[in-house]
Formats: sequence, structure tokens, C-alpha cells
Amino acid sequence: MTLYVNLADLLGSRIESGFYRPGDRLPSVRALSVEHGVSLSTVQQAYRMLEDNGLASPKPKSGYFVPAGRKAPALPAVGRPAQRPVDISQWDQVLELATATPDPKVIQLARGMPDITSPTLRPLTQALGKISRRMDMPGLYYDNIYGTKALRDQVARLLLDSGTNVGPDDLVITTGAQEALSVSIRSVCEPGDIVAVDSPSFHGAMQALKGLGMKALEIPTDPITGISIEALGLALEQWPIKLIQLTPNCNNPLGYIMPEERKRALLTLAQRYDVAIIEDDVYGDIAYTYPRPRTIKSFDQDGRVLLCSSFSKTLAPGLRVGWVAPGRYLDRALHMKYISTGSTATQPQLAIAEFLKDGHYEPHMRRMRAQYQRSRDQMTDWVTRYFPESTRISRPQGGFMLWVELPEDFDAQRLNRVLHGQGVQIAVGSIFSASGKYRNCLRMNFAAKPTAAIEEAVRKVGAAVAALMIQTD
Amino acid sequence: MTLYVNLADLLGSRIESGFYRPGDRLPSVRALSVEHGVSLSTVQQAYRMLEDNGLASPKPKSGYFVPAGRKAPALPAVGRPAQRPVDISQWDQVLELATATPDPKVIQLARGMPDITSPTLRPLTQALGKISRRMDMPGLYYDNIYGTKALRDQVARLLLDSGTNVGPDDLVITTGAQEALSVSIRSVCEPGDIVAVDSPSFHGAMQALKGLGMKALEIPTDPITGISIEALGLALEQWPIKLIQLTPNCNNPLGYIMPEERKRALLTLAQRYDVAIIEDDVYGDIAYTYPRPRTIKSFDQDGRVLLCSSFSKTLAPGLRVGWVAPGRYLDRALHMKYISTGSTATQPQLAIAEFLKDGHYEPHMRRMRAQYQRSRDQMTDWVTRYFPESTRISRPQGGFMLWVELPEDFDAQRLNRVLHGQGVQIAVGSIFSASGKYRNCLRMNFAAKPTAAIEEAVRKVGAAVAALMIQTD
Repeated sequence: MTLYVNLADLLGSRIESGFYRPGDRLPSVRALSVEHGVSLSTVQQAYRMLEDNGLASPKPKSGYFVPAGRKAPALPAVGRPAQRPVDISQWDQVLELATATPDPKVIQLARGMPDITSPTLRPLTQALGKISRRMDMPGLYYDNIYGTKALRDQVARLLLDSGTNVGPDDLVITTGAQEALSVSIRSVCEPGDIVAVDSPSFHGAMQALKGLGMKALEIPTDPITGISIEALGLALEQWPIKLIQLTPNCNNPLGYIMPEERKRALLTLAQRYDVAIIEDDVYGDIAYTYPRPRTIKSFDQDGRVLLCSSFSKTLAPGLRVGWVAPGRYLDRALHMKYISTGSTATQPQLAIAEFLKDGHYEPHMRRMRAQYQRSRDQMTDWVTRYFPESTRISRPQGGFMLWVELPEDFDAQRLNRVLHGQGVQIAVGSIFSASGKYRNCLRMNFAAKPTAAIEEAVRKVGAAVAALMIQTD
Repeated sequence: MTLYVNLADLLGSRIESGFYRPGDRLPSVRALSVEHGVSLSTVQQAYRMLEDNGLASPKPKSGYFVPAGRKAPALPAVGRPAQRPVDISQWDQVLELATATPDPKVIQLARGMPDITSPTLRPLTQALGKISRRMDMPGLYYDNIYGTKALRDQVARLLLDSGTNVGPDDLVITTGAQEALSVSIRSVCEPGDIVAVDSPSFHGAMQALKGLGMKALEIPTDPITGISIEALGLALEQWPIKLIQLTPNCNNPLGYIMPEERKRALLTLAQRYDVAIIEDDVYGDIAYTYPRPRTIKSFDQDGRVLLCSSFSKTLAPGLRVGWVAPGRYLDRALHMKYISTGSTATQPQLAIAEFLKDGHYEPHMRRMRAQYQRSRDQMTDWVTRYFPESTRISRPQGGFMLWVELPEDFDAQRLNRVLHGQGVQIAVGSIFSASGKYRNCLRMNFAAKPTAAIEEAVRKVGAAVAALMIQTD
């Protein structure tokens, strides 16, 4: 990704969010050049790109303006969650999602499944096959509780891309990021503890809090800059919070990347109140910009950040290989890992280690990043076209999930029931809230390459949304 | 396994336990025929076998007697654990075990590793390879939260061998039996609850109790008949016990199989006090007798037994595929499984399902059962020969673990440190107690086919034991 595309993307999302309104003058080329430390011609290229997309129009001698007549969906509103710690609900709807099995008759837009059909994944299945054929059958042995050393070496190397400096012995391989999250929570908290979460937030992490007996305090989140540092500061002042749990990079479900200065500010807050941070980075390597954004962990000096991630979104979820860099909580994390699953399946670890060592990860990610960004644009177009005009949609900066917000009285669960008979599945927004908020929202997966069948599915969802909105009126 | 071998085994273990003492008259052929419902000639065959093994000698017209001068190791003493619920310790020593990596220079007698070199396992690695080569890559998809249906079908069929009647939808596939145990404990208990455990008991289950904040109440266990129903009854009367956790079949570490009537008695107690039972059956299919012993679950009418098992001991631990039949706790178990790992790795499940479906499991187990029984006899011989005379050893009825008890002031941890420099590893007894008892005991793995190198390792352990005993004197 080149500099001018990044800049165009940033300006584009500010325009789409309504930060710059139709008719507004946009920042001058010189001002942007200074602000972002790029050349004048880079800014000019960015503006030309915005012009091509109908987001900016030049006026001679006056600079660039937001076109007066443009029609683009607004960004989702800032979350306005509960103001006190709550017991987490919504398990029934999460269970519905978790019991879904692949069905060729259903267009599955609900789950967090990446596209696994790329030929750049082929060396991975070849590695799996090769290990199966080895006469000494290394895949059948118990693994070390830390995880296969060859894989930890590779993960440590990979983490350097996000500025994260941890050694192989600072890492524990887990059965997917879900185990990393669960192990991390139990390494820090006791039942009854209060955990601050970004809102909306990943349902798997919240259900883990529920299952382990913690209370969630949902912190408002901006669809561009992420969790509100201001609201978090107030919450830390008011409540005995033990842990902050969030997804700062390519957030699930909102798709934003927290700016670096806000990551630093969050860490400073955590230090001041001496709380731990669980940072979920599963989509971090799928940021559309390169180099990928830094982790909060990369700024962490005193080991209070537990970085959780996996290969489920970058390679394939069926492998169930994730990891945690638990910082100062390593000893406790090892105990929690041990009682949770003993060790992680050996063969997938060996295969991934080989895939990484042989240099197949970077080309695969390069390809997937570009594909997902194109799919985002296509999905955005379709939703803009097929959904009612009042629909608000997110502007993901990475990953493959779109967040769609409908008018406040809309009921996405009713929508899902209607869609059930039509061969389409979406994820209802309420599972992303500890307290069942976001009932008027839904999350749609755009990982697969756009096809006519997917367009038809999105059209069906849009039509069903419109029909339900008329009924509600 | 034929009837007469079973009978000889039973009588042999009673002789070795000291139930029949040197010089005692053994039961008449007719009495045994009536008691066990077998023919007279079967009993006679059994006695001839005992005679061959030096455990019985005939006196004309008087029947069979225990030879006066016989020297055989005594069974371990009955456990005499703490009489009150305790917080569980010993994590440091368990961690030492869990961090052990395969090392060709070390004879590893510590871990619960089966022999995976049998050619009867070959179809399993072939199935893994075949799935890797499929173009539709089924191993890469998220699995259903219950686990792959094809595998649950096969596990349900397999369970019929133990009299256990559960359907595929009563089963949840887990990442090894460790996850099954952890999920089960959390499905029944809250932190602070008291759990009754057999003592000695599997360290993984006890560490799970520790990590989840429960207290363990260790119940004395007989080396032939298992957990003391009498002591358990008293404990249930005295303490607010929520759960009983035990391994009734081919117990780890003692190797006994609880008689059926005691399994029923235990279930009756559980009903009377309305407590749940977690039944760990990982070694159940490796009972040396066929058909394999019944599970407690097979007698369960009201869904209070959570049956936990895996393919880690029967096939290979690196696959990390286990299961739980959680009975009435199914809903909660699904939630706990979800937050623990989301789902289990897909490819190993598919491969095992194929291995079972194609009929490879039974021939493999037939072979392994016979091999492990021969290895038990060989290992028993070696320990009898190379360890000091006061050594007591278990008489496993299945599995591949031998329990060795040394005089009370012996320190197995010191032994392990001595052995560290000699290329041998054993498991120290204290990890099998919640309160650090059994320091004078050790557990040795006899899964591998006996070799001169293993004999030499056992000789080294015996010599080190003898040397430490002299130092202690």
C-alpha cells in the first residue's frame, strides 16, 4: 500500500463520517504534507484518488471541497453503552452462531471465516500432508506446554512487524485466540472482578468474561478512533476495574485502527490505575495499510499487556492455533493453559511453522489484504445500493467485517429469522454488547471474493431490512 | 482375553496384595466356579497359570495353597490422605513434567505417553495425509461447537462397548480429555466449592480444580477396589461436597478397575447426596480384559455423571481430541467449551472419524492391550529385581502405568534430581496428591516395548533408590 492511498483512505473516512460535510473546504495540500510528513505530490495523488471516487472536487485557486451533492452512507454512531458493570447476556444468540455448520445452500455472512481458497495457502496443506507422511510421526506426540519451539520462533519474528519485541519463551501457543483470551482473563482476574471492554466488542471475549464470572463495563467507542480514552478515564476513576479488554487494530466488529497516540494514552491510563490490558490482535496483520499498525504491547514497558492472537483469520480457523504473549503474567498463564487443554494439537503447529519459515506468509498476506480491501469497497457499494437510505455503515481499515447500523427501533434478530428461510445468515448486533445493545445493528462478512450470488444475498438482506422497517413504521 | 486368564489375574492380584498370605489355602475349584459363573475346567486352567507363575501350588487332595516361601512385591498401601478439604499444591512439579520435550537421550518414564509406533496406527496418519490433499480443504474450516458430527457418531458407537448409551448430540468434542475435565468442573462448580477426589488422583484434574478455585477432599483409595465408598459416605455426611471426581477404570496412577458393585454403590451415594460425578475414562479402553469394564455413566439414570475421555492414550496425544458426555449439564458444558477454545481442531477429528469408521480401532486396541499387559509383566519383573526388597508395586489391570511405593521417609523428588543427570525421568508421587502426599512414591510408564535400554533405565532407577535409602538411614 502506498502512502497516497493511505492518506486518501484517511481523508475518505473523515468525509464519510461527516467530519467534513458536503460543501466543506478540505485541508490544503501544504497543510496535509506537513501534518503527515509526506511530499506535496503524494497529497496531490491522494486528492486525485478522492476525486475519482467522488469524495472531493477541486475549485480553481481555492483547493479541494467535499462535493455538495454527494450521497454516501454515514458511519455508525458512537456506542452509548450501559454506564455500570453488568452481567453479560446474549449467550443464546452466540450459540446459534457457534452451531452453524458449512452449508452450500446458505450464504454465510455471519461468521468470522476468512477466505481459504487462495492458492497462496496451498503450501500450508502441503506441509500438513508432508508431516502426516513422516515415519517418525512428530504430529502424534504431546507437545511442550509452551507450544512447539519452531513455531514460537516464527511467531516472535512475525511480531516484529507490529513493533512487538517478545522472545519465543515469552509466548504460549494456544488452541486459537479464544483459548488465549480465556487463559489471559483467568491469569489476571478473579470471579466478580470488573473488566472494561470496548463497545461494541468481540462476543467470544465477552462470553469468556461471562463464563468466568466477571462483570463487563462497556466503554463508548468511536467508529474511527476506537475506545474513548476520556470515558475510560472516568470509569477507572469510578470503578475498581481490574482489566481492560479490547481490539485496537482492525477492530471486530467496527474495523477501525486506533491511532498510535491513543494507544499510548490508553497504556498511560492503565499504568496510572495499575490495571492489565488484554489486547486482541487477530485481525492486526490484515490492516490494508503496510506496514501494519503497532500493537499496544509494543509500547508496553512493564509487562501489563497480554497480547492475544491467532492464525484463524490470516490462515485458517480449523487449525486452532493461536498464541498469547502474557508479559508479567506468564507463570499464571502457563498454569491456566495447562488446565485448559494440556497442550495444543501438534501437527497444525508444525505445519504453520514450516509455512512461515519457508516465507509463504508474507506473499499470502499481501494478496489477502488487497483482496479484502477490494471486497470491502464492493460490499460497501452493495449495501449502499440495496439497503434503505438511513443505513449507516462502518469503514473498515482492515479485516473482512462490515458493521451496519439501522434505525434505533430495528430488530436484527427478527431480520435473521426472516433470512433463515432465504439462505442467508448475518450476525446480529446484540451479541457484540454485554447488555444486549446494538439490536438495530448487524455484522456482515466480506471475506469471499465478490460473486453474483453474494450480491444477490446482500440484495435479499437489504430488501428484508426495508420490509421490516415498513412493518415497524 | 479368555476367562481363565481373567480369573488367574484376579486371584493373582489377591495373592499379591496379601489378601491370601503365604501358606493360606486358596478357594476350591468348585467354589470359584460357582462364584464366577465359569466352568470347572476354566478354574483349573486358571490355577495352572498361577502355578506356572509361582503364585499357587497344589497339595494332593487338599486343593491349592499360596506357596510358603514365595517372594513377590506387596501392593501399595491404601491411601491415607488429609481428612479435610485443602487447597491444591504441587504445580511446580507438574510444570516440570509438562515442559518435558521428547529427547532421544532421555528414557522418558514420567509422562502418560502411549506407544505410537504400532503399524496398526498407520491408517490414521494416512487419513491425516488424505484430508490434507483434498482440494476442498475441510480441515481448514471452523468446526461446529459440538465437534464434527462424523466423529461424534463414531464415539457414540464406541461407547456402547462400555455399556454407555449416549447419542451423538449428547457429546461435545474437546481438545483432549484435559479440556473435557476443565469444562466439566466449570459446568458443575463455583470457586470455593469442595470436590471429593480419589487419592492418589490424576494431577491434571487436580490442577484444574486448583486453577478454578475449588478445594479438594482426598478420599482413601484401595489399590484393588478403588475409592473407599465408606470413607466417601462419611465425607458426604460431613462436608458440603458438590462433585466427586475419579478414574474408576484402569485408574491413573494405581491401575485398578473398580468392581461393578462398587460403581453402583458410588452412584447411589451420589444420588442420595445429590452430587455430580466426573468420570475420567481415558484408559478404560485399555483394560486387559475384554469386554472392557463398564463406566459409572452406563448406570446413570438422571444425567449426573459427566463422562470425560479422549484418544490420547488409545491413539495419540498430539492429536488433542477428547470428548465429554455431560448429561444434564450439556447446556453449560457447551458454553464452557465455547469460551475455552471455540472449537476443536478440525483435521484430527476428521482423520480419527475415518480411522474408526473404517474399522481400524478394534484391531489396534486388541494389539495394544496385549502389548501393554506383556509390558506390565516385564516392568513388574524388572522393578522386583532391581529395586530394594521393601518396594511395593501396583498390579495394573489396564493402561501402561506402574505405581511404585517406597518406605515412608523416601523422597522421590530427590530421586528425580539424581536421575536427571542419568538420562531417565520418572513422575514423582506428590503430584498425584492435592496436599503433597505420596512423596515416597513414583509412577513409571511401561507403554514402550521392553528393550535392553529400558531395562538399563529401570536398573538405574532401582540403584539410585537403593543409594538414597542408604543415605536416609
